[in-house]
Amino acid sequence: MTRRLHLNAFLMGVGHHEAAWRHPRTEPARLTDVRHYQELARIAERGKLDSVFLADGVALQGNVAHNALGGLEPLTLLSALAAVTDHIGLIATVSTTYNEPFHVARKFASLDHISGGRAGWNIVTSAGEAEAGNFGIERPSHARRYARAAEFLEVTRKLWDSWEDGAILRDRAAGRYADTGKIHPIEHAGEHFAVRGPLNTSRPPQGHPLLVQAGSSEDGKEFAAHYAEAVFTAQQTLEEAREFYDDLKGRLAAYGRKPGELLVLPGISPIIGSTEREALLLEKELEDLIIPAYGLAQLSRMTGLDLTEGDLDGPLPDVPAETEGAQSRRKLVVDLARREHLTVRQLIGRLAGGRGHLVMAGTPEQIADRLQEWFTGGAADGFNIMPPILPGGLSDFVDHVVPELRIRGLFRHEYEGRTLRDNYGLARPRSRYEQAVAS
Amino acid sequence: MTRRLHLNAFLMGVGHHEAAWRHPRTEPARLTDVRHYQELARIAERGKLDSVFLADGVALQGNVAHNALGGLEPLTLLSALAAVTDHIGLIATVSTTYNEPFHVARKFASLDHISGGRAGWNIVTSAGEAEAGNFGIERPSHARRYARAAEFLEVTRKLWDSWEDGAILRDRAAGRYADTGKIHPIEHAGEHFAVRGPLNTSRPPQGHPLLVQAGSSEDGKEFAAHYAEAVFTAQQTLEEAREFYDDLKGRLAAYGRKPGELLVLPGISPIIGSTEREALLLEKELEDLIIPAYGLAQLSRMTGLDLTEGDLDGPLPDVPAETEGAQSRRKLVVDLARREHLTVRQLIGRLAGGRGHLVMAGTPEQIADRLQEWFTGGAADGFNIMPPILPGGLSDFVDHVVPELRIRGLFRHEYEGRTLRDNYGLARPRSRYEQAVAS
Repeated sequence: MTRRLHLNAFLMGVGHHEAAWRHPRTEPARLTDVRHYQELARIAERGKLDSVFLADGVALQGNVAHNALGGLEPLTLLSALAAVTDHIGLIATVSTTYNEPFHVARKFASLDHISGGRAGWNIVTSAGEAEAGNFGIERPSHARRYARAAEFLEVTRKLWDSWEDGAILRDRAAGRYADTGKIHPIEHAGEHFAVRGPLNTSRPPQGHPLLVQAGSSEDGKEFAAHYAEAVFTAQQTLEEAREFYDDLKGRLAAYGRKPGELLVLPGISPIIGSTEREALLLEKELEDLIIPAYGLAQLSRMTGLDLTEGDLDGPLPDVPAETEGAQSRRKLVVDLARREHLTVRQLIGRLAGGRGHLVMAGTPEQIADRLQEWFTGGAADGFNIMPPILPGGLSDFVDHVVPELRIRGLFRHEYEGRTLRDNYGLARPRSRYEQAVAS
Repeated sequence: MTRRLHLNAFLMGVGHHEAAWRHPRTEPARLTDVRHYQELARIAERGKLDSVFLADGVALQGNVAHNALGGLEPLTLLSALAAVTDHIGLIATVSTTYNEPFHVARKFASLDHISGGRAGWNIVTSAGEAEAGNFGIERPSHARRYARAAEFLEVTRKLWDSWEDGAILRDRAAGRYADTGKIHPIEHAGEHFAVRGPLNTSRPPQGHPLLVQAGSSEDGKEFAAHYAEAVFTAQQTLEEAREFYDDLKGRLAAYGRKPGELLVLPGISPIIGSTEREALLLEKELEDLIIPAYGLAQLSRMTGLDLTEGDLDGPLPDVPAETEGAQSRRKLVVDLARREHLTVRQLIGRLAGGRGHLVMAGTPEQIADRLQEWFTGGAADGFNIMPPILPGGLSDFVDHVVPELRIRGLFRHEYEGRTLRDNYGLARPRSRYEQAVAS
C-alpha cells in the first residue's frame, strides 16, 4: 500500500494570523460561538482530515487590547464538536502541571466515549509564568515539569487500563453488571501523585486516547519518544525538519518503540490563492493589519526577551544563551532572523502568520508541492494545517489543496475506520492488567 | 401572574432505581452512549422543563458487580447535550474539594458560552473517602471542606466578573479588540487559594452560571443561603419538606437576599402507570430485581454504618449519633425506618428507588396532586424529577404528568426566555468590577 500522509486542522479562533480578526473575511464575534467551531470541524471532516486540534493555556496570555483572546476551553468545546461529526479526531491541549491525573484521565475517557473513539490529548507542561499565578504556585522548573508530566502519564495510562475490555458483563438475569476481577485499583504511589483508582468511567473505546505532544526541547523530545504517538512541530526548512524527524524517530528504540508508532507533523500556515499573485495579495493584506506593538509583545513572549522597546527597523539585537522556558522556539526565531537578515519589523511579519511555524503563500499546486517534498523527503508523516483565516482558509485548503494531494495518491479518499487511532493507523493499546491468555 | 413551578430532570444512567439496568424497559449498554443522554435532554426539552442535571463523584462508588456504574463525566457530557438542544438548562455537579477554581470557573464559562447561557453548577464538597484516595490526600473535615467551598465560590465569582460586559470592542479599523480597562486581574489571596486572574474565557452569557447546591447539613444550609440559587433536597413528608423550606428561606436575609432568590426543589421519583394498579406493578417489578447484597452496601454507604452483615428481616439496628460525612442523609433514613416500622429489607426497597428521595407510584393525576400539594403547601418551588427507568420514565412524566400540571395552570406552555436563569426567573448578576454609571 502507498504511504499516505496525515492531516490535522489546527483550529484557532478566527485564524492563525495574529491580525486575522481584523480581516474582512473573518467574523471575530464568532470567537465564543460554538457554531463557528462546528462549521470548522464539519469542513475538516468533509475533507476527510484525520483530526482537528485546539491549543490551550490556563491564563490570559498575549495582549487582548489588540488580539481576539478569551475563547472557549478545549475539552468542553470538543464534546460539542463530537456531537455534530462522525469521523474527525478531536485533540485537546491539557497541561500536566496544573491538573490532577484522575480528572484528566476521566475527561478524556468521557470524550472518547462521547465521540465513539475520537479523542486525543496534546500534553503540555505550561511554560508560562502567568499560568502559575492562577494556581497560587511558583512556576516549576523545566525539568520538574517534565518529571511531573512523565508520572502524570503513568497514572493516566493506568487509570485508562483499570477497567479491562471484558469487565462489563451486563448479565441482567444473574444481576451481574461487571466482573470486578477485571476492574483494578491502580494503587499508584509516586513522587508527585498518590492515586488509588480505579477510574469511574469505563475503558475508553480507543483503550487510551491518542497521545500528542509538541515540545522540542531535549526533555520534550525524550518525553515524546517515550509517550507520544503524534508530534506537532515548528520547522522552517526542509533540512531542519528532516533533522528533527530523524532525531525523534531515532530516540524511539530506547523505549522499545518502532518508528511507525510516532507520527511527526510539522505545522504549516498555507496562504492560498487561485494564482500566486492572489495568494501574495492576501498575505500582504494580513501583514498590513499587523499592529507593531502587538507583534513586539508576541516576539518578546516567544523568545523570552523584552524587545518591546527595540528598534523596529534595525536587526534583532544579540540575545543571551538559552534560558528556562522558551528555549526551542527562541532558537528557531533567532535562526530565522539571522538566516534571512530580517529587521525586527520583517521578523514580526514572518512570525505573525504562524508564530514560528512555516508560512507559505501560493497556489494549491505549489502548496501541495511543498507538502509532497517534505513528506517524501523524510521530513514529515503529515502536517498540522494552520489556516491564516477561519473558516475561509480551511475550506480553501480542503477544497483545493486536498484534491490535489488525492490526485497525487498522497491522501485518503474515504475514512478507513471509525476512531482517531484508525485515522492515524495506530494500534489500540491493551490493558496492562489483562492476563495473558493461555494457549 | 400565577406562580409557576419549576421542573428539573435528574438524569442518571438508565434510571434512578438501583435495579433499573435489569428492567426490560432499559438498555444498560446505553450507559456510555451519548445518544441516550441526548434523547433524554430532548425529551425534557419537549416537555419545556427548566433543566437537566447530572450528579457526580470522583471515585468508583457503589458495587459495580451489581449496578451499572462507570458512566460519563458531566461537563464533557453536557457540552454534547448543549449541541442538540436550544432551551433546556444544563446542570453539572463539580466538587470544590479536589479541583482548582480557575479550571472550574473556566469550564463553566465555556459551557455557558457553548449553550448560549444554559449552564448551571451543582456545588458539592465530596464527602466520600474513596474520592480523597484518588487525589493523594486525607479526606478533609466537613467544616474544612465547607470553608474551602466558600472561598472557592468567591474566587470563581470574581473570575466570571473579571471581564466586564462591555470589555470586548471588536474595533477592526482601530485595531482595538478589547478595552483592557474593563478586564481585571482578581488578585485573590486567601487561606486556600491564590489566583491572579483574569479568566481567559470572556464573561459567560449568564454573568455567572446558575449556582445549585444540595447539602442539608447545617454547614450545607448556610452555604446554600449564602451562594445557591436552587437547592435540591431529599424530603419524605410534606411536614419535613415545609420545615426545610422555611428554614432555608429564613436564612437568606442574613446574606442580604430575598426568599425568591433561592428556589427549593425536593426530589421525587415518580413511578407512573395509566392506572394505579399499573404503577404499583411497575414498582413491584423493580423491587423484585433488587439484589439484597447491593442494597445493604448502599444502605451502609448512605448511613455511614457497616450494615452488610445485618439481619435483612429484622429492624434497623440502633445507630450511633451523627458522625462526619453522612449526617443529613443518615437522619432521613433512620427516621423513615422508625416512622414506618420497616425491616431492613423493606427499608432497602424504599431506598432503592430514590436513595432517600420521595418515591411515589401512581397515575399522572395522583402524581400531579402530590406535586401541587407540596408546591401550594409551602414545601417547594418546583421539583427534581428522578425517573426510576430511563428514558421511559422521563417520557411518561413529560407526556402525562406535565400536561396535567399545565391544565392546572402550574407549569409553562412555552419557554419564556433563552437562558437557564430565564427559565428559573432569576436575575443576571452584574460584574463586581463595573463602575457605577454617573447619572
